[in-house]
Amino acid sequence: MIIQKSTNPRISSFDPNNFAFGNTFIDHMVICEYENGKWGEVKVVPYGPLPFSPAMMGVNYGQACFEGMKAYKDKDGQVFLFRPEKNFARINKSAERLAMPAVTEEMFIGGLKALVDLDRAWIPEGEGMSLYIRPLIFATEEALKARIANKYLFAIVATPAKSYYTAPVSVKISDYYSRSANGGVGFAKAAGNYAASFYPTQLANEEGYEQIIWTDDSTHEYFEESGTMNVFVRINDTIYTPPTSEKILDGVTRDSFLQLAKRRGIEVKVEPIAVKTFIDAQRNGTLKEVWGVGTAVVTSVFQSVGYNGEKLELPRLSNEESFALTLQKDLVDIQTNQAEDPFGWRVLVEKNVMETV
Amino acid sequence: MIIQKSTNPRISSFDPNNFAFGNTFIDHMVICEYENGKWGEVKVVPYGPLPFSPAMMGVNYGQACFEGMKAYKDKDGQVFLFRPEKNFARINKSAERLAMPAVTEEMFIGGLKALVDLDRAWIPEGEGMSLYIRPLIFATEEALKARIANKYLFAIVATPAKSYYTAPVSVKISDYYSRSANGGVGFAKAAGNYAASFYPTQLANEEGYEQIIWTDDSTHEYFEESGTMNVFVRINDTIYTPPTSEKILDGVTRDSFLQLAKRRGIEVKVEPIAVKTFIDAQRNGTLKEVWGVGTAVVTSVFQSVGYNGEKLELPRLSNEESFALTLQKDLVDIQTNQAEDPFGWRVLVEKNVMETV
Ligand SMILES: Cc1ncc(COP(=O)(O)O)c(C=O)c1O
Ligand SMILES: Cc1ncc(COP(=O)(O)O)c(C=O)c1O
Repeated sequence: MIIQKSTNPRISSFDPNNFAFGNTFIDHMVICEYENGKWGEVKVVPYGPLPFSPAMMGVNYGQACFEGMKAYKDKDGQVFLFRPEKNFARINKSAERLAMPAVTEEMFIGGLKALVDLDRAWIPEGEGMSLYIRPLIFATEEALKARIANKYLFAIVATPAKSYYTAPVSVKISDYYSRSANGGVGFAKAAGNYAASFYPTQLANEEGYEQIIWTDDSTHEYFEESGTMNVFVRINDTIYTPPTSEKILDGVTRDSFLQLAKRRGIEVKVEPIAVKTFIDAQRNGTLKEVWGVGTAVVTSVFQSVGYNGEKLELPRLSNEESFALTLQKDLVDIQTNQAEDPFGWRVLVEKNVMETV
Repeated sequence: MIIQKSTNPRISSFDPNNFAFGNTFIDHMVICEYENGKWGEVKVVPYGPLPFSPAMMGVNYGQACFEGMKAYKDKDGQVFLFRPEKNFARINKSAERLAMPAVTEEMFIGGLKALVDLDRAWIPEGEGMSLYIRPLIFATEEALKARIANKYLFAIVATPAKSYYTAPVSVKISDYYSRSANGGVGFAKAAGNYAASFYPTQLANEEGYEQIIWTDDSTHEYFEESGTMNVFVRINDTIYTPPTSEKILDGVTRDSFLQLAKRRGIEVKVEPIAVKTFIDAQRNGTLKEVWGVGTAVVTSVFQSVGYNGEKLELPRLSNEESFALTLQKDLVDIQTNQAEDPFGWRVLVEKNVMETV
């Protein structure tokens, strides 16, 4: 690994109490180039632009996939990643489906640790704060031919992230648009999946909904995901979430929620959720909670659901009554080293990893 | 429009008899930046890299769409575009679905004409030769948030193209993978659609097929497209092609073939093609021809079709017997100014457009 430190660090002007999530970038980034059938050296370099032609295949043919993960700082200043091996496995699953080369553990896990260690000062401390980290791979070859590229860039960039707290949202059950096809790329974190969701989401926003609950494209009778999160439904005291499939992303937060719910003895059913079952439960009062889970906000609680032109209200539960918020706290406490970690999910980022590698 | 000519043109080293299609770039490109809610000035500049960060939204979220079109040089050296207004309309349809800003006629048609005029020396002459032109739009904003971007680049790049002649190919009818979802982005030239097709195509290649005939993702019982082309089937003396829809790209070549077929009095039916009808026709000998159409190769004739593990052979017709090749010739003759153009499809690229603009 080559470390080229910034001669112009911006950290001294970073205000952890006042920054914009998503476009405040830490001082460094990881890059690694793929050419002639192999990955080159992993480099940590100052964050910034690189030269790319508009003929770059990544933007022409969408050969691009990414990950989203976080690093957390505890009250003693120790820094942790959360289940990074899951993201490592998933980026390679995405890469395979998009006919891109797999990344190595040295690039992904090694790159993450080196970057987070070097820029640990950028990780804001306190309730809900974190560093949002974006590993990605995209085709860099310049060619106007719709075929598998021969050159790629793997990169890791990162931005400080604020509190995950979000107010309850209204969501719309999709009856027309969809994000996944059978035999498609819905299970992958393929760049193109996200762009495809923007317009339908914008239309939903105009109708007064923050997000869409995606349903299967063939019948719109089954739940898939919600926005860019996996979805959970609680009927009486049982939690339901659809099984992962080629159409549903295998979320790290989803998996963690399932394990945490089981630990608490909550009944969990991983099975298809029919829109009809859901609506019936809302009407007969057995529907208690619906929420989305993902790395970005951990949990997004839904307060109302749009279906067939109607806006159905959901019960408002206290923090204690809510499975969503109880499990969220369980998870955050582990992520931020405020609780035991019986699952072995936390990964400490050692200081000066680079020098010991 | 700002024209900044290359001080280092490569045209003198371009050998029209020996070049690589797709990664030989002409001396210039068009660029235009979108920011603060509007497009800036259209510029013709030397082809080359621009600075982009790996946090660029175009490669993170796939907000990117493109067009593919050609310029042809006739025997007198006159240069023509083919139905550019169709591509202009289509890029804006794609852009709308991907929540990107529409481009203006000045940017698209004006940019095309200026670029093709300036680099007309790069257009190879002779049978089947052309300039392949790639207008595209992609999100350039640096942000790690899955939302509609605020900054975009519109660009036009181009590469000389060789003879469209291609040997007959074997294609596989997809029984698992798909390229389009109901309520998805299949009708758009969305970057992500192409990356999604690479892996299934690679698997088909390994089974001995050059391309995939995509079928609907819900049942795999109906034809959609073939590779990156629209598909035509001839049973007895009637031509069939599926109607365009949100799942099928509205191809310029497809539309031109339909008009040319009607002019010749060939019976044309724009209706869904069931795999079963197709297979039955192959078995009872009424299936005469199957082919794909698109700007790149105009026509790709299929010699065999894989279905259910079987490789079904198709008849080999002479150029005179073949509707595919007859219509291909009709089209190419119009494109290259070797025949009358009753449809008004050719658009002459005037010399020194820039100075008269
Ligand atoms: C489509 C989609 N579903 C679900 C998730 C949640 O996955 P994770 O919990 O791994 O963040 C994400 C990513 O955040 C996503 O992009
Ligand atoms: C998916 C797809 N279908 C069909 C076509 C054919 O369209 P056109 O005839 O406009 O080139 C293309 C583009 O070439 C395409 O990308």
